[in-house]
Amino acid sequence: MEREHDFLPERTKWKRLVFRVIFKADTKPGKAFDLILLFLILLSTFIVMMESVSVYDAKLHHIFIVIEIFITVIFTIEYILRIVTLRNKKAYIFSFFGVIDFLAILPFYLSLFIPITKYFLILRMLRMLRVFRIFNLLDFMNDGKFIVTALKNSSRKIYIFLMFLMIFSVIVGSLMFMVEGHREGFESIPQSIYWAVVTVTTVGYGDVSPGTPLGKFLSVLLMLAGYSIIAVPTGIVTAEMRNKRQDLYKSCPRCGNSDNDDDARFCKICAEKLK
Amino acid sequence: MEREHDFLPERTKWKRLVFRVIFKADTKPGKAFDLILLFLILLSTFIVMMESVSVYDAKLHHIFIVIEIFITVIFTIEYILRIVTLRNKKAYIFSFFGVIDFLAILPFYLSLFIPITKYFLILRMLRMLRVFRIFNLLDFMNDGKFIVTALKNSSRKIYIFLMFLMIFSVIVGSLMFMVEGHREGFESIPQSIYWAVVTVTTVGYGDVSPGTPLGKFLSVLLMLAGYSIIAVPTGIVTAEMRNKRQDLYKSCPRCGNSDNDDDARFCKICAEKLK
Amino acid sequence: MEREHDFLPERTKWKRLVFRVIFKADTKPGKAFDLILLFLILLSTFIVMMESVSVYDAKLHHIFIVIEIFITVIFTIEYILRIVTLRNKKAYIFSFFGVIDFLAILPFYLSLFIPITKYFLILRMLRMLRVFRIFNLLDFMNDGKFIVTALKNSSRKIYIFLMFLMIFSVIVGSLMFMVEGHREGFESIPQSIYWAVVTVTTVGYGDVSPGTPLGKFLSVLLMLAGYSIIAVPTGIVTAEMRNKRQDLYKSCPRCGNSDNDDDARFCKICAEKLK
Amino acid sequence: MEREHDFLPERTKWKRLVFRVIFKADTKPGKAFDLILLFLILLSTFIVMMESVSVYDAKLHHIFIVIEIFITVIFTIEYILRIVTLRNKKAYIFSFFGVIDFLAILPFYLSLFIPITKYFLILRMLRMLRVFRIFNLLDFMNDGKFIVTALKNSSRKIYIFLMFLMIFSVIVGSLMFMVEGHREGFESIPQSIYWAVVTVTTVGYGDVSPGTPLGKFLSVLLMLAGYSIIAVPTGIVTAEMRNKRQDLYKSCPRCGNSDNDDDARFCKICAEKLK
Repeated sequence: MEREHDFLPERTKWKRLVFRVIFKADTKPGKAFDLILLFLILLSTFIVMMESVSVYDAKLHHIFIVIEIFITVIFTIEYILRIVTLRNKKAYIFSFFGVIDFLAILPFYLSLFIPITKYFLILRMLRMLRVFRIFNLLDFMNDGKFIVTALKNSSRKIYIFLMFLMIFSVIVGSLMFMVEGHREGFESIPQSIYWAVVTVTTVGYGDVSPGTPLGKFLSVLLMLAGYSIIAVPTGIVTAEMRNKRQDLYKSCPRCGNSDNDDDARFCKICAEKLK
Repeated sequence: MEREHDFLPERTKWKRLVFRVIFKADTKPGKAFDLILLFLILLSTFIVMMESVSVYDAKLHHIFIVIEIFITVIFTIEYILRIVTLRNKKAYIFSFFGVIDFLAILPFYLSLFIPITKYFLILRMLRMLRVFRIFNLLDFMNDGKFIVTALKNSSRKIYIFLMFLMIFSVIVGSLMFMVEGHREGFESIPQSIYWAVVTVTTVGYGDVSPGTPLGKFLSVLLMLAGYSIIAVPTGIVTAEMRNKRQDLYKSCPRCGNSDNDDDARFCKICAEKLK
Repeated sequence: MEREHDFLPERTKWKRLVFRVIFKADTKPGKAFDLILLFLILLSTFIVMMESVSVYDAKLHHIFIVIEIFITVIFTIEYILRIVTLRNKKAYIFSFFGVIDFLAILPFYLSLFIPITKYFLILRMLRMLRVFRIFNLLDFMNDGKFIVTALKNSSRKIYIFLMFLMIFSVIVGSLMFMVEGHREGFESIPQSIYWAVVTVTTVGYGDVSPGTPLGKFLSVLLMLAGYSIIAVPTGIVTAEMRNKRQDLYKSCPRCGNSDNDDDARFCKICAEKLK
Repeated sequence: MEREHDFLPERTKWKRLVFRVIFKADTKPGKAFDLILLFLILLSTFIVMMESVSVYDAKLHHIFIVIEIFITVIFTIEYILRIVTLRNKKAYIFSFFGVIDFLAILPFYLSLFIPITKYFLILRMLRMLRVFRIFNLLDFMNDGKFIVTALKNSSRKIYIFLMFLMIFSVIVGSLMFMVEGHREGFESIPQSIYWAVVTVTTVGYGDVSPGTPLGKFLSVLLMLAGYSIIAVPTGIVTAEMRNKRQDLYKSCPRCGNSDNDDDARFCKICAEKLK
């Protein structure tokens, strides 16, 4: 995801060694390090979740706290080591994973002052994205990149679509407020907009639903609209992905046919040998 | 969206100047004007929403009214200036944005007589579509056009699909009325049609849901139908978008045809060699 | 939809004239006939719906009945005339629209004996499909055919998909019955299967929802499955539609490039003139 | 699905005969056997379902038990015969259908000790997948394979997508827990994650729904996200399917490559001229 592989270690020997373990996964200790990290991330996420369940927290509060301190200390040491052993420290600190690594420890220290912030520790999960490399996951990385790229390339069109959808929802919501304003769930325009989005995205909680015949008629139109225009983001991303695949096609140097499959040895139109 | 850039100013000097500020965004005052407009639109939308929340309206009713009058006066002056400074006044008044500009002030004056119409002020949001130009948003405009074009080109197919779906929902709804007519939520055919649309579009509020085994069985069939045929609008729009990846088209330097495929070597209209 | 245009009239003169009015829309009386028919269909559908609403039926029962008898008599005469004036009577009676025409009058006569069957009159709506031709709706017919063909061509794949989905839902439902069997809404396997379909199709009424942690965990997996595999019918239909569009491409007789647009005058690869 | 047709019978004559009936459908007894099997599977599935409905079980418990024993005995004999008549017994036992056949009888014997496991008999339904061959269902098999292949080829991308979605849901759920933690349905992080998945997949049961304005605002964002990113799995599968329209491929008469595009004039592997 990030060009973390461009990072260079400091020149001191122990820093170079530590760097290799922490940043690379091409050695046994490096792989072991990543596996331990993965385990700690999963454990930590699990603990934060369990802590939020009052039944478990009542019984196991102290154990939870101990494990949390333990993991946070390790992550803090790791974070410091990452900075210390790197030559381009600043690049790391402000890189995607640098920020994630920092966010993975910050909430704990913050929670000493503002307890509720503890739950931000869940952001540690994002560190999992890095640990992909320990498995022979080059293909996975490529597929992930494929998805991210397709979404990035479609993002502008999707933003515009969402903006249209928001304006549409605001207008429909206001209309509904005028129609059903006296009923529960439509007491205000923001509330009615909430209903409009719930409906147009086909989520349909049902905590708010129309009561009058006219309201139901408008709802039906809104549902049909939502059911149809989901085609827009889908079409955008599909066209983008299909296009990405197009890069796999080979051009023929003789007849110029650009539609040869990736594994073609000869042009399908003129039988020219392809590289 | 609209060919507003074709509009021409009156020949009087001050009108030309005002025209440039109001209609164009290529000067500093023009950009400032657009930014202020954007701010006023957002503020106005926000006020209308807040006014509908009884808690806030109780406390801040007077402030809301003052801001609303203030913004409406500005929008009214602006609307008059637009008409006055334009040479082709009629073209503007009946253009897409001309109508929007009018609808942005009308509800206020109307609400002096019929209070509920005040909420139509939310239509002011549509003015936002114009303000796009203040940012360097040519790409955004193109992407917006791309989506609108794809929807326009697919619209006939989608109408037909929706007509099929409506007929289908009416028939299924009537069937369900016969099956579950004695239960709450299925008391009449229109009510049962409402349920059928809620189900087939996968919205599923749950305010109406089948109670008898036979009703549940029919619902299951309807859900599976809805889950499958969402493929139809999606397929239509995707095929359309795939076809119209405008950024992949090559323009012909001779005949100006801008619709040549990305891999074309010769213009398909005049056979001119393309780069 | 149907090859109704292959029908031939009887040789008697008045039959030929009546045939032209009833079956064709290329004369003034023919168009008027179709318009009246459309109006009667819509009116009849509307009446059947209103009749099911007890408030209206209480007030207007007699009027409803009179209109219904009136329309049914007209439809019956029309049906008889269609048979009488046609040379190939049998072909018509068993054609798609022949059956529809019959079903449009049958429920009324049936309802004299079994009242509830009256609501099948709603099937009259299907007659609307024929009336398309009165508008200059060749394009609409083509688009309708495009959708129907794409669905027909995909139908086998979609059936298989739905069969997989059904088997999957039955198994998941049974599993859920074992997990949540003691809770309301999961009292039996059929009931749990109903829940599974409601969930996997993302309808989500909420009339049945999991209560235990394990049940919720299984639900989450089922939802994610449903959210992902909706891609299957969508992919099938999209590929089919994209393919249909492919028929619009022109082949080059010289270089064999088969990817020229429908409106191309010259091959985009070799500049050969195309027909 | 499985290369069951590679199985070879033992050399004893009666085993060869039985093998042919059980494993093949090319003889009259073979077809009859498959039809009986299909009937027994459907009957058995139906019985298991009905048994779970307490009303029917109360009345018909004994009949259910008898039928169940009867079918299980037949299936057990059949399973033993399959093993006995086959030369490569081990390959069968660990093949897909071998495992299914075993799972179709195991729960019954298990339920003698642990009653609840009886419902796993529903797994018998999976045996239906085999019975496809009795109909002239080569096309169906191909279409099934098409779907399975497309899903298999997309599976890695879809896994990654689901992992992103899970991490996203965990983070959003935790955020929501902090925002709405005091309200019913958001009492713990796991519970809030459940809500997040219900929302992002657009299922929307409504058993848990946001109560505070901020919670509703976050929900709206989550719904819009869910509504947009459903495009990702759809795009992945569609691109895959488009790529694999197997019925459009041409076989090469020389090298046997069956992967040539529909419009290919020469085999892409050996340059043989294609019709």
